[in-house]
Amino acid sequence: MSAPFDPTRTGAAALAALYRQGVTDPVTVTRLYLDRIAALDGQVRAFNQVLEVQALHAAAASAGRWASGRPLSDLDGVPLAVKANIAVAGAFWHAGIAAYRDRVAPRDADCVARLRDAGAIILGIVNMHEGALGATTDNVWFGRTQNPLRAGLTPGGSSGGSAACVAAGMAAAALGSDTMGSVRIPSAYCGLAGYKPARRAISIDGVIPLSTTLDHVGVHGRTVADCALVAAHAGALSPPGPTRLSGLRLASPDWRSRVDAPDPIWAARDAAAARLLSAGMAALDADLTNYQPGQARRLGLLVSEVEGLNAHAAQLATGDDGFSPEFLSLLRWGGKQPATKVAAAYQGLDEIRLAGLAWLDTLDAVLLPTAPQTAFAFSDPVPANQADFTALADFIGCPAVAVPAGLSPDGLPLSVQVMGRDAAIVLAVASALE
Amino acid sequence: MSAPFDPTRTGAAALAALYRQGVTDPVTVTRLYLDRIAALDGQVRAFNQVLEVQALHAAAASAGRWASGRPLSDLDGVPLAVKANIAVAGAFWHAGIAAYRDRVAPRDADCVARLRDAGAIILGIVNMHEGALGATTDNVWFGRTQNPLRAGLTPGGSSGGSAACVAAGMAAAALGSDTMGSVRIPSAYCGLAGYKPARRAISIDGVIPLSTTLDHVGVHGRTVADCALVAAHAGALSPPGPTRLSGLRLASPDWRSRVDAPDPIWAARDAAAARLLSAGMAALDADLTNYQPGQARRLGLLVSEVEGLNAHAAQLATGDDGFSPEFLSLLRWGGKQPATKVAAAYQGLDEIRLAGLAWLDTLDAVLLPTAPQTAFAFSDPVPANQADFTALADFIGCPAVAVPAGLSPDGLPLSVQVMGRDAAIVLAVASALE
Repeated sequence: MSAPFDPTRTGAAALAALYRQGVTDPVTVTRLYLDRIAALDGQVRAFNQVLEVQALHAAAASAGRWASGRPLSDLDGVPLAVKANIAVAGAFWHAGIAAYRDRVAPRDADCVARLRDAGAIILGIVNMHEGALGATTDNVWFGRTQNPLRAGLTPGGSSGGSAACVAAGMAAAALGSDTMGSVRIPSAYCGLAGYKPARRAISIDGVIPLSTTLDHVGVHGRTVADCALVAAHAGALSPPGPTRLSGLRLASPDWRSRVDAPDPIWAARDAAAARLLSAGMAALDADLTNYQPGQARRLGLLVSEVEGLNAHAAQLATGDDGFSPEFLSLLRWGGKQPATKVAAAYQGLDEIRLAGLAWLDTLDAVLLPTAPQTAFAFSDPVPANQADFTALADFIGCPAVAVPAGLSPDGLPLSVQVMGRDAAIVLAVASALE
Repeated sequence: MSAPFDPTRTGAAALAALYRQGVTDPVTVTRLYLDRIAALDGQVRAFNQVLEVQALHAAAASAGRWASGRPLSDLDGVPLAVKANIAVAGAFWHAGIAAYRDRVAPRDADCVARLRDAGAIILGIVNMHEGALGATTDNVWFGRTQNPLRAGLTPGGSSGGSAACVAAGMAAAALGSDTMGSVRIPSAYCGLAGYKPARRAISIDGVIPLSTTLDHVGVHGRTVADCALVAAHAGALSPPGPTRLSGLRLASPDWRSRVDAPDPIWAARDAAAARLLSAGMAALDADLTNYQPGQARRLGLLVSEVEGLNAHAAQLATGDDGFSPEFLSLLRWGGKQPATKVAAAYQGLDEIRLAGLAWLDTLDAVLLPTAPQTAFAFSDPVPANQADFTALADFIGCPAVAVPAGLSPDGLPLSVQVMGRDAAIVLAVASALE
């Protein structure tokens, strides 16, 4: 088989043209991905379950539609992977928690059903940090997913399997979920684009929650266009973005005193800002005054932990087998906090959201680093501040896109994040950085 | 003094024309209100503090501006009362709690400063249910405010002093606050209009909080126009509303199985709906499916109690003197609830808000009763469901207006409530019912 489609270089949005022109077809491409999974996933360990039969069946149907000139959408025949907390009918649905190891989803999550209605092919279920509460995807039950760019490094998390499978060319794009950064951080560590649409733009129906207050469904892809295409068919359709950036207001706030990150992280952001200004964006000196990422993180974690305890209460009522001591201790710590502290966390996040919305209303896009570090070794201590740039967009509920921004001195991907009120603008600005 | 302005019949919005024409002037009107307070408030007990010197000083300045043809706004020279949880510089600022009995506000609340900038005159501070957590204004520390329409009945609450002083012609309009219905319920019981703008449309800066999540500042007035005028100058400016209602979609959902209210309450709502349909509105069969007011009330109360405990934590750390046992027991009950239950309350309210916004997006206005009962005797048991029609607009954060809707068989005011996404439309629909 000579593949005219190179899964290590191009992704979801390129496929429709190839199918339309008959250069390749969904069965060939699906087989290509399944072959790569078979060849590579023994090392990467991104997949919890490969849905080979289902995928080939769907690919054959898609091929028939393309052959007859009647594809369902530009996503018809595009092979995707789905994070293990998002329901795919007939597949395992466990959120990386062994207690749910044998649970099979009775029906598709809303977003998965929409993607299938658009013709997407589900290749399988991918690994995640246990319960989505953590950012290394070093899962004691389902294995440690490796960063495909360098073995021994984390792919990030919690959607580590989603990012790793796309980065390794084992899927054209992947669904993930993002509570404080769980789509954007692994996309950053793996050199991908990652898109978290506005809150509930993609339904959380059929997603095992960590925090219904903060959970967002998002997409990992090679390009911003790949992410936008999948997100649009998953429910987050945004209108066409501006074709020119000139005049759009860009804030690149100086958070050096707020988030501890090495120079190359800031240099990548500053270089990206310079490119956007060269493209005609107008620099705006506008910051979210008084926002302290470290303090806000604690509020978000507390809300996630207590809501996570609520999410798993029914299972825990039958016993705590299949929950790791680490995960359980986080949930239980949250559950032991006084009512007033919990309420204060919600009150604090609410004020951040209101102030954040008012801030974003004064500008078109904010540019920040995606993460305060590049991918690190599993043997290294886990930095506490991984989500200190990303969590704000979950608190506000606004769209945010992580986009690659070159390599660090040691050859690992750097990433910057674009956030704002308007998804179309955010996507257009992020695309301009590719 | 022959007063061409009758404070028992007309209110805030009528004054500018009278001042402009020189029919009367702000000093005369302010004296009229102060005289009525002196004559009537011994019975009504609406005022905690009358700011006679301040008010007359402000009235003289206003009179000078009108005389020179340079009023600050159409609110210049309009005498208002302010609920005791809203800061008026130099006045008592205690939220009906004896622990703060001697506290004097160091500066105006944002909304009060705006009203003063527009020329409004602050007559004084009015009574409220202790801590804004309750709806009778039977305040153990500051007295029981009577319903001016019938002694022995509650004026409602928590903004009972605000409604009572306007209903008794002791102020042209009044500021209140509304956490689950605290502006609209007393306006209903006292035969007034009551307007709660969208969340934070009027800042809560300078308002002693009950719940920062649910608190809204609102206005009590004789007419919807009075309320809208004051609200606009307090920060909640809305564009001009539609001049015709034809074609606007009106939902009048049947909540008879959800809220226990006697027939005259429903009849008033149905009659109001019929009037709006006659005016050209289109009946829309759209309900907020699954919304259970009684269950939702418990979520809102829990959030209010825990956040109230946070609001008063600093004072309580010095001892609980000056907090009534009833108020304290509510706050402390909230503080004793488990973290998971508190989080579940926030999660539940959040889902109500999202579903409510989606519901309101399908229509222009919702018409419901304001309260499930008319004003009741202080000697009667307090109904648990007083806020079961009003709380939803606080949960959603949308504008809502209570407007008089005739009299019950026993001669007490009935009221209906209009809510929706668009303040201008909500105000226009409510005005059409006057």
